[in-house]
Amino acid sequence: MTGTARRIVYRGARTLAVEPAEPWPTPPGHVRVDVAYTGICGTDLHILHGDMDSRVKPPCVLGHEMSGLIADVGSHVSGWGAGDPVTVMPLAWCGHCPACRAGHPWLCRDLVFLGIDAPGSLQNSWTVPAAALVRLPPTLRLDHAALVEPTAVAVHDVRRADLRPGERALVVGGGPIGVLIAIVARRSGADVLLAEPDPYRRAVADGLGLVTLDPAADLAAQVGEWTGGAGAAVAFEVSGAAAGVTAAVDALAVRGRMVQVAIHPFPREVSLYRFFWRELTLLGARLYERSDFETAVGLLAQGDIPAKALISRVEPLERTAGAFGALESAAGVMKVLVDCRPRGGAGAR
Amino acid sequence: MTGTARRIVYRGARTLAVEPAEPWPTPPGHVRVDVAYTGICGTDLHILHGDMDSRVKPPCVLGHEMSGLIADVGSHVSGWGAGDPVTVMPLAWCGHCPACRAGHPWLCRDLVFLGIDAPGSLQNSWTVPAAALVRLPPTLRLDHAALVEPTAVAVHDVRRADLRPGERALVVGGGPIGVLIAIVARRSGADVLLAEPDPYRRAVADGLGLVTLDPAADLAAQVGEWTGGAGAAVAFEVSGAAAGVTAAVDALAVRGRMVQVAIHPFPREVSLYRFFWRELTLLGARLYERSDFETAVGLLAQGDIPAKALISRVEPLERTAGAFGALESAAGVMKVLVDCRPRGGAGAR
Repeated sequence: MTGTARRIVYRGARTLAVEPAEPWPTPPGHVRVDVAYTGICGTDLHILHGDMDSRVKPPCVLGHEMSGLIADVGSHVSGWGAGDPVTVMPLAWCGHCPACRAGHPWLCRDLVFLGIDAPGSLQNSWTVPAAALVRLPPTLRLDHAALVEPTAVAVHDVRRADLRPGERALVVGGGPIGVLIAIVARRSGADVLLAEPDPYRRAVADGLGLVTLDPAADLAAQVGEWTGGAGAAVAFEVSGAAAGVTAAVDALAVRGRMVQVAIHPFPREVSLYRFFWRELTLLGARLYERSDFETAVGLLAQGDIPAKALISRVEPLERTAGAFGALESAAGVMKVLVDCRPRGGAGAR
Repeated sequence: MTGTARRIVYRGARTLAVEPAEPWPTPPGHVRVDVAYTGICGTDLHILHGDMDSRVKPPCVLGHEMSGLIADVGSHVSGWGAGDPVTVMPLAWCGHCPACRAGHPWLCRDLVFLGIDAPGSLQNSWTVPAAALVRLPPTLRLDHAALVEPTAVAVHDVRRADLRPGERALVVGGGPIGVLIAIVARRSGADVLLAEPDPYRRAVADGLGLVTLDPAADLAAQVGEWTGGAGAAVAFEVSGAAAGVTAAVDALAVRGRMVQVAIHPFPREVSLYRFFWRELTLLGARLYERSDFETAVGLLAQGDIPAKALISRVEPLERTAGAFGALESAAGVMKVLVDCRPRGGAGAR
């Protein structure tokens, strides 16, 4: 397939295939982006495992954490030109459902998530609505810019917590999103503690100057010591585990806020008694809005997000299946990127 | 025991006994109140069932929803005099724990709840710290004033929801607290729907002009119809049942707020997925602060709380066990009061 544009197709049954994919003419209101890098996230893994086949309807192209350069601009698009460095906020909403009308378009009843409900960025060339583009500063490396989307998640989650300087915040779960939340929360002036069982991930976080602990040790006792017995003002539940929910609830001070970041497909047992007794607050948090994306671009451009330390490895597009495998093992990896540029193309920036 | 002051003593094992109780000299900083009426609440029932014996340590005197007239004022008390009509905010806090320092004394780590952790008002004469007194206007009937405490709970719960005019609020559970929440929420300008399975309680609420429904019918469909498919902005969980939790969560619109009012002694299964997907908020709510009590006095004094319709029956102190029994059956009753005045005493106001 030398010389042919390529895409990675999820065919169901844990199968990813490399296929040729000649670009179509760019439709009105759209742009075609030469994809530079695509990060793989936990949702992509869930899809590969078949857990979301009823929604994604394979065959389909995954990928939504990306960076690239505009290759072609369709009609009725202004303000964008070929060569512009961009990322994509991978959402399209209806504009007239109750959520959209209430100003929460990212919670649109008919939300289309590019890379889940529509083709994603695991291909050399990706055609998207111009409205989804987010400009990147030319000084931001494109591999680092593939972290804009998960950073926007973290920005949104921290904003949802209404975190105030000096408050103590526990982050339960130290994968990429947990670490990004810890970094953004710390930058907001919070005193942050990160609980993560995996020694490699703890070591990465330690290397970023975060205070970490192993939740297998007595987490409640450690939080008690850290907070003088009062408990944490905020807990971010990023583990997706039943024990993580309990740990987050138990860690909170009177009037503490818990932000539910991780996805729990099934109902979890929650101590509503503790919510009552301490007047706790639980805040569900999902996705982001444009301002979160723009804040994330700024944080990465300023070097506030240690992108280099978070990117464990980069695989070429043809080895996307191996990149998923590395993330699946979760041993010794934090963020895995796929280099989506054609082999023999422009050098890495 | 004619001519002797009396009190009702919970002796454990579902037993309430009438005992003589001569008042002690009033200590400094305290007042002695001739109790007029005491309402019985769900917590009192739990205590009678033995569910809280480790906390209440029988023998003890229950009762915390009350009204009365000051009989005697101890030293170091100013601003109060014999004959003043009062109710009592039945809380005493430490003043120096993290919750007290943060301005949430009703969540004090060492909170003493009068009527649970200390003697209560099911007696002719009750000695309390002067700091707990709340003044009643002379125009407010003392039987109606026994509803100040549960009304303060409702005021606190509605305030916790940050309810805005025009918002739709579902109340799950139509016992006294649920009905009071519905009335206070409606007065805040909300459009209120009350779900309650008991026909008698629904009829009482209907009689107050509330819109009620039987949750055994398809509650989700009814809420959908009521809200044009969007869901409710707020749901108050006042049922204490697992099904009530699910109903409240399922009823909420995007960014909806659920106030957890009822006590769930054991963990409940909660759809954290729905909290994530719709960015819902869960707010635990417990007790009240002084401003809630003062608001409640005002609402009752202005006739905004239909006290007469909510008081199903009044029993004399000697028949307190029967009053508990009536509430226990929960058939055909809403609020049950105990008339705590000595037989042959002053007539009802």
